[in-house]
Amino acid sequence: MTVILRRAPKARLEGCTARAIVPTQIGLSDFGNFSARTFGVTKMVPSISPLAPASFPEMPPVAGVRFSTAAAGIRYAGRTDVLLALFDEGTSVAGVFTRSKCPSAAVDWCRERIKRDAGGARVLVVNSGNANAFTGKSGRAATRLTAEIAARAAGSRPDDVLLASTGVIGEPLDAMKFAAVMDRLVADAAPGRWHEAAGAIMTTDTFPKGAAAVVRMGPSAVTICGIAKGAGMIAPDMATMLSFVFTDAPISPAVLKSLLQEGVEDTFNAVTIDGDTSTSDTLLAFATGAAAARGVMKLTRLSDPRFAVFRKAFNAVLADLAEQVARDGEGARKLVQILVEGAKSKKSARRIALSIANSPLVKTAIAGEDANWGRVVMAVGKAGEPADRDRLSIWFNGIRVAHKGARDPGYDEAAVSASMRKPEITLKVALGLGKGRDRVLTCDLTKEYVAINGDYRS
Amino acid sequence: MTVILRRAPKARLEGCTARAIVPTQIGLSDFGNFSARTFGVTKMVPSISPLAPASFPEMPPVAGVRFSTAAAGIRYAGRTDVLLALFDEGTSVAGVFTRSKCPSAAVDWCRERIKRDAGGARVLVVNSGNANAFTGKSGRAATRLTAEIAARAAGSRPDDVLLASTGVIGEPLDAMKFAAVMDRLVADAAPGRWHEAAGAIMTTDTFPKGAAAVVRMGPSAVTICGIAKGAGMIAPDMATMLSFVFTDAPISPAVLKSLLQEGVEDTFNAVTIDGDTSTSDTLLAFATGAAAARGVMKLTRLSDPRFAVFRKAFNAVLADLAEQVARDGEGARKLVQILVEGAKSKKSARRIALSIANSPLVKTAIAGEDANWGRVVMAVGKAGEPADRDRLSIWFNGIRVAHKGARDPGYDEAAVSASMRKPEITLKVALGLGKGRDRVLTCDLTKEYVAINGDYRS
Repeated sequence: MTVILRRAPKARLEGCTARAIVPTQIGLSDFGNFSARTFGVTKMVPSISPLAPASFPEMPPVAGVRFSTAAAGIRYAGRTDVLLALFDEGTSVAGVFTRSKCPSAAVDWCRERIKRDAGGARVLVVNSGNANAFTGKSGRAATRLTAEIAARAAGSRPDDVLLASTGVIGEPLDAMKFAAVMDRLVADAAPGRWHEAAGAIMTTDTFPKGAAAVVRMGPSAVTICGIAKGAGMIAPDMATMLSFVFTDAPISPAVLKSLLQEGVEDTFNAVTIDGDTSTSDTLLAFATGAAAARGVMKLTRLSDPRFAVFRKAFNAVLADLAEQVARDGEGARKLVQILVEGAKSKKSARRIALSIANSPLVKTAIAGEDANWGRVVMAVGKAGEPADRDRLSIWFNGIRVAHKGARDPGYDEAAVSASMRKPEITLKVALGLGKGRDRVLTCDLTKEYVAINGDYRS
Repeated sequence: MTVILRRAPKARLEGCTARAIVPTQIGLSDFGNFSARTFGVTKMVPSISPLAPASFPEMPPVAGVRFSTAAAGIRYAGRTDVLLALFDEGTSVAGVFTRSKCPSAAVDWCRERIKRDAGGARVLVVNSGNANAFTGKSGRAATRLTAEIAARAAGSRPDDVLLASTGVIGEPLDAMKFAAVMDRLVADAAPGRWHEAAGAIMTTDTFPKGAAAVVRMGPSAVTICGIAKGAGMIAPDMATMLSFVFTDAPISPAVLKSLLQEGVEDTFNAVTIDGDTSTSDTLLAFATGAAAARGVMKLTRLSDPRFAVFRKAFNAVLADLAEQVARDGEGARKLVQILVEGAKSKKSARRIALSIANSPLVKTAIAGEDANWGRVVMAVGKAGEPADRDRLSIWFNGIRVAHKGARDPGYDEAAVSASMRKPEITLKVALGLGKGRDRVLTCDLTKEYVAINGDYRS
């Protein structure tokens, strides 16, 4: 069995998902086409993140799904802002959504559709520029109207349409903007337009995000491709993490749901930029089932042994996309991996890792290239999880700086300082209490973050 | 019954503790004497917070406690860094401490002493410059030795000595530094040296913090005076909130403990700068009982009706000190009051208020003088508490910007923008679900915060 998985041609972080083979880059244009430079309406001009992959990955088409994009003028000028995906009959869908108690209208729409329709889908419409969040009744009406417009053009039912929106909060979304472009979107839809698709859903992202894997499943290969946009916010409210993953493997909705829920736990749920949670975070997985025509049997049980390799590849795609979101954190100059081990449980390790990852004092120290383990102790202590100061050890990039409750007398400060200048930082904490371990990705907190999120009015 | 309470001569925030009478300022020197400018070892030169009170308050002596300060050279040059307080026999003490699972050695010491000695105290030693946190066995030995040095000089038992330390984490604290100054400290101790006391415990604070109240209790007046230092961190680890409150009212240790635990809830526990929790946060209350000589009966029950006015004044002192900590938040340019009402319970309102107060996106928006209610919705939503998007209303400085789940169509953007330029911002959220309400103080998140906490190496 083969896993061909595109990875960014950057140093991998330890423990970072499945094995990867980086194929030669194909001739896709660079990210500049989709960068924030062309947004037209923003005052900020973020340059591409220094942590970005060198180029967009090679991504094969997924049989059973076609894409097109359009510039509907929802907010931006001179760039695409609508993505349409059309699915063949028999496509399964599953989703995980923000835990916000104030979700966007599109999140409500998807939750209801997936629940009611037992996981079938024919159409996905995504727009950037307007989040359709906190828009009250008009927001609900806009989702219904958008679904009707898309269904009419695509020849499906409104209930088979999934929606996602990202952009400004609190502005009414004019669904008629979709009407003006929908017929052409349907007519133009074609397979494999990953780069265009990833570009159309960007808001303050500085690069489009994609990842792919191909795995053998019985008599044929199946493909898993995903795109994502990050949690950038700007001018003033372009929130939201969105990601869409597509496979031609035949998978029942129930199994796809389990797969997604399992996969998200150590990928998207283990990334934090600033601890803030969008009203619109959406991750949808679609399984077209087109590989059934090539003899791939439908997967209806998670315990199916053929799932082992597929699941690994699926999770690797999620992990790759999630890491790209961290690499595009606002103002980020460092990608930071937090490893916690020796905790009482994995859950406890996760809480401690998130406490460290969300600590402004830890994040600013890393921005300052300081291996400030005192602040790490502080963040461990405030997590509220079992921890024994006198068993605690802390490493920065593999160099132990604190051991059993005190500064490590042997550590070489010059070596640590040199190491902290790297763009990727691994911070490991060993608690010495149990076998619980976990890993979280984040980025540093720089003055650029404050500028992006606070200076846009000046 | 009279409450004479010193308040900073600044506009009061709505709902901010008891009624206040601002007496004429007495001839204390201005804050410059104690500002970070004179620290000597730091590279940062923070100027006095623009949110600081105009001057240190008038604070009467508290009978039964004497103070002195010394420059022991623990870390700083050219300033005091040790505070000694000597208490008359019969003084009660109670404390609340950091919830950190990795507390400092001094916190461990105080917890044990107060528990073992049933709340009696004769000596308090506080040092700035070194937190004695994450210092392992040597840290524990340093607390024991410091207590022995102080007890010998003061003629008490080591177990009657309370300790607090603030400053660098992870550096061994040399207790012998105290030996060199202790005899003179004891000899020089005098009543009412509040300004000196508040100055000696500062680290990155930009101004010394004090508050006082005088209340009549039966035949005589009793006095409540407190000092505090804020949660500044710099170069690289000067953490910790410390506060010490003193009264001559005769109060049993058990009642003092209840009073303190009750009082802290809506004062120090309702302030957040960056959501980070020091290893060393300490609030100690001392009741000397000296007013008993003037005929004030000992308070041994919280239900004692004489407690009503005392409790109000005591809580007002705590609230004033806590607000001063927020006014001295690192890099702060705005004092932000978060009011949440209509929640399911007070506890739920607190969680939502803290979620807003700790949101980097809300805090940067306020730094940018933007009434960004979209981010407030986000922060309400991520709190995980009951909230109904379609009942939510939001006000900035009394101007309603969002109502029942959508932008308030009537709000005057120019008026809001003008209002956001004020140094004090009140953000109110009404959830429309129940009667739970709460209030939290915080400050904005500026580039100066990142500079203070991330730039110190450059």
